[in-house]
Amino acid sequence: MNPKLRFRPAVLKMTGYVPGEQPKLKKLIKLNTNENAYPPSPKVAEAIRNFDCANLRRYPDPVGQTLREEIAKIYGVTPDMVILANGSDDLLTIVTRCFTDENHPAACVWPTYSLYPTLAEIQHAGCIKVPLNDDFSFPEDFEKKAEGASIAFIACPNAPTGFLYPKERIDRLCRDFNGAVLLDETYVDFASGNCLDLLKKHTNLIISRTFSKSRSLAGLRFGFAIADPEIIEQMMKVKDSYNVSMLAQVIALASLRDSEYTRTIAEKLKTEREKFSGELRKLNFRVIPSETNFVFVSPPRRNGEEYFRFLRTKGIIVRYFPGGMTGEFVRITIGLPEEMNELLEATEEFLKG
Amino acid sequence: MNPKLRFRPAVLKMTGYVPGEQPKLKKLIKLNTNENAYPPSPKVAEAIRNFDCANLRRYPDPVGQTLREEIAKIYGVTPDMVILANGSDDLLTIVTRCFTDENHPAACVWPTYSLYPTLAEIQHAGCIKVPLNDDFSFPEDFEKKAEGASIAFIACPNAPTGFLYPKERIDRLCRDFNGAVLLDETYVDFASGNCLDLLKKHTNLIISRTFSKSRSLAGLRFGFAIADPEIIEQMMKVKDSYNVSMLAQVIALASLRDSEYTRTIAEKLKTEREKFSGELRKLNFRVIPSETNFVFVSPPRRNGEEYFRFLRTKGIIVRYFPGGMTGEFVRITIGLPEEMNELLEATEEFLKG
Repeated sequence: MNPKLRFRPAVLKMTGYVPGEQPKLKKLIKLNTNENAYPPSPKVAEAIRNFDCANLRRYPDPVGQTLREEIAKIYGVTPDMVILANGSDDLLTIVTRCFTDENHPAACVWPTYSLYPTLAEIQHAGCIKVPLNDDFSFPEDFEKKAEGASIAFIACPNAPTGFLYPKERIDRLCRDFNGAVLLDETYVDFASGNCLDLLKKHTNLIISRTFSKSRSLAGLRFGFAIADPEIIEQMMKVKDSYNVSMLAQVIALASLRDSEYTRTIAEKLKTEREKFSGELRKLNFRVIPSETNFVFVSPPRRNGEEYFRFLRTKGIIVRYFPGGMTGEFVRITIGLPEEMNELLEATEEFLKG
Repeated sequence: MNPKLRFRPAVLKMTGYVPGEQPKLKKLIKLNTNENAYPPSPKVAEAIRNFDCANLRRYPDPVGQTLREEIAKIYGVTPDMVILANGSDDLLTIVTRCFTDENHPAACVWPTYSLYPTLAEIQHAGCIKVPLNDDFSFPEDFEKKAEGASIAFIACPNAPTGFLYPKERIDRLCRDFNGAVLLDETYVDFASGNCLDLLKKHTNLIISRTFSKSRSLAGLRFGFAIADPEIIEQMMKVKDSYNVSMLAQVIALASLRDSEYTRTIAEKLKTEREKFSGELRKLNFRVIPSETNFVFVSPPRRNGEEYFRFLRTKGIIVRYFPGGMTGEFVRITIGLPEEMNELLEATEEFLKG
C-alpha cells in the first residue's frame, strides 16, 4: 500500500460487516435476510406514480419535518423526539458515533445483530458482549457485566434468536444501566408488545424502528428513532445533512398512512410462523419462540451448517451463523406459504438423509 | 441532561453543520444551494415509471455492482476502483472516518465547503485550514502548512468561490502532500477540465462525484468515488452496508446513460453564468471567475450581507457566508434566464439605494 495512505489502524485491522447474501438468481427461495414475503402497500406504488420527478433537482428537507410530525402523532410523542435515517443501520451508526470511542465501549448481549460490535470497532471502541442465557433469555447480570459502557444495543425482539424480552426487564435495564439504551425494535410489528411507553419514564432510552421488515421497504432505506429531545439534538449534529432522500420521505409517508396494510401482512406472517414452527417441532427441531418474521431453529442430530448446506443444494437460502451458541441453528425468514411448504419438503428429505 | 447520557465531548461541544435553507414557500427564487435550474433527464422519469414497487421488499445490492461497472466503463477504470454513496456527503463522511482521529487531523484550504472541518470535528480530529491567496487561487505553501494531516479535502472547482485550480497544481499536491487527497469534483461538469487522469499516476488520490448538481438529482442522494482498489477496500468497511437505496441505484443508472442531456443543460447554465457574470461586472461587482453553476460576487461599496438581505426582501434567496474573506461576497446559484433577469433588476435597485 502507498505509504501516504495512513488509514486509521482500527479500520485497517477490521474485517468489516458482511451482510446476508443478495443472490442474483431469481429462481432461488430467499429466506436469509428477513425481507418481507409480501410487497409494500399499494399506497407506495401510488405515491411513486404521483411523484413529480422535476422535484428531484431540489435537496430534500434535511430533517423531514412532515414525516417527523406524522410519526410523532402516531406514536404520541413530539416531533423533536423523532429523527429520520437512511435505514435503521444509519441510526445505529449515528448513535455509535455519538457515544463510543476508545475510552467508551458499547455493550450488547450475545448472540445478537453482529453489526453492533462492528460499528463500535470502526470507532475504535470495544464492545462488551454479555452472553444470553442458554434459553436465549436476557442475562440477569447484564448491567453488572456491561459496566463502563456508555451505550447498550439491545435488539428486542432479538436477532437471530427471535426472542422478545419482557418489558419489565427493559424497564429495569433503563433504570439500572449507567448509560444510554438503544432499543432496536426492528421486528416489533411481528411481536406481542413494544416498549414505546417506557420513553415516558426513561430519558436515556432510544427506540429505533425500520421500514425494512414489516413495511416491505428494505430496498427504500428508511428508519427512524424516538428519544428525548436532548438526545435527538445531538444525533442531528452527527447525521449527514440530507441523509433521507426525497423519494424515501414521500414513500415512507405513504406507507405510514397505510398501517392497516402492514398489520394485515404481519398477521399473515405470524400465522405462517406459528404453523411452520409447529411443523418443525413435530420433526423434533428445537425452535426458539419467535416474535419476529423469522425462526431460529436447530435440527435433530445434525448441526446448523449441515442443514444450511443441504437447503442450499435445493435452491433454498437461509442464514447460518458459525460459532458456539449459534452453530447448532439456522435462521429462516418466514416466506410465502408455498415457499415454507417447499422448505418443509426439503427438510423431510434432509432428515431422512 | 440525564447524567446517564455520556455523549462524546466532541459531539456535545460542536454546533453542527448548517445546510443551506430549504424554504417551504414556492414563490421564492431559490438560488442558495446550487441546485440545478433544470429538471433531471426524461430517462429518470421513465425509470421511475417502469420501476416495479414490489421489488422494494428486497434489500438493494449492497455494493451496487451494475452501477459500479457502468461507471468504470464510462471513466475508463475498473469496477473495484468505484464506491457508491448516499450523496457525496456520505463519501466525505466515510473518508473522514477512514483517515482522521484525535491524532490525525484533516486539512483543507479556506474558504471551502465548510462540511470538511465539521466532519473532522465529529471525529474529534483537528482540521488545518490553509488560507487561499487573495485572488482565491491555491496556496503555494499548502503542503508545508498541512504537514501532519492524513487527508486533504480539496473541492475543485472550489465552493463557495467557483475557482478551478490548475491540474498541474493538483498533480503536485498528490505528489508532495504526505497523505491521501480527496478531490471533491462536485461541480466539475460545469468546468473546463477534470483530474480523472491523475488517478493513473497517484494511488493516494480519491475523486468524488455527485449527481446533485449537473444531473439535477439533489433530492435522490447519489454520489460515487473513484480511487485505487486498496482505498476502496477500506472505504467499503466503513460505509453502511446498504447505503444506496434500490431506487437511487435504478435512477442513477438511468441518468448515467443519458449523459448527453447533462451536457446540454450544463452548457445552458455555463452560457447563463457567463452572461450574468458580465452583467454584474458592468455594474462594478467583483466576480470571481467561476467554473461551476454559481458565482461568488462582491457588490461595489456595500458588503455581502447588505446585498444578501436586500435580495431577501425581494423574495430572492442567495447564500451569505459571514467572516473575513467571504463576508464581502454572496454566492449566487445560476438559475433560469428569467430568474437571473429578475435578480439583475433587484440588483440595480439595490445599487441605487
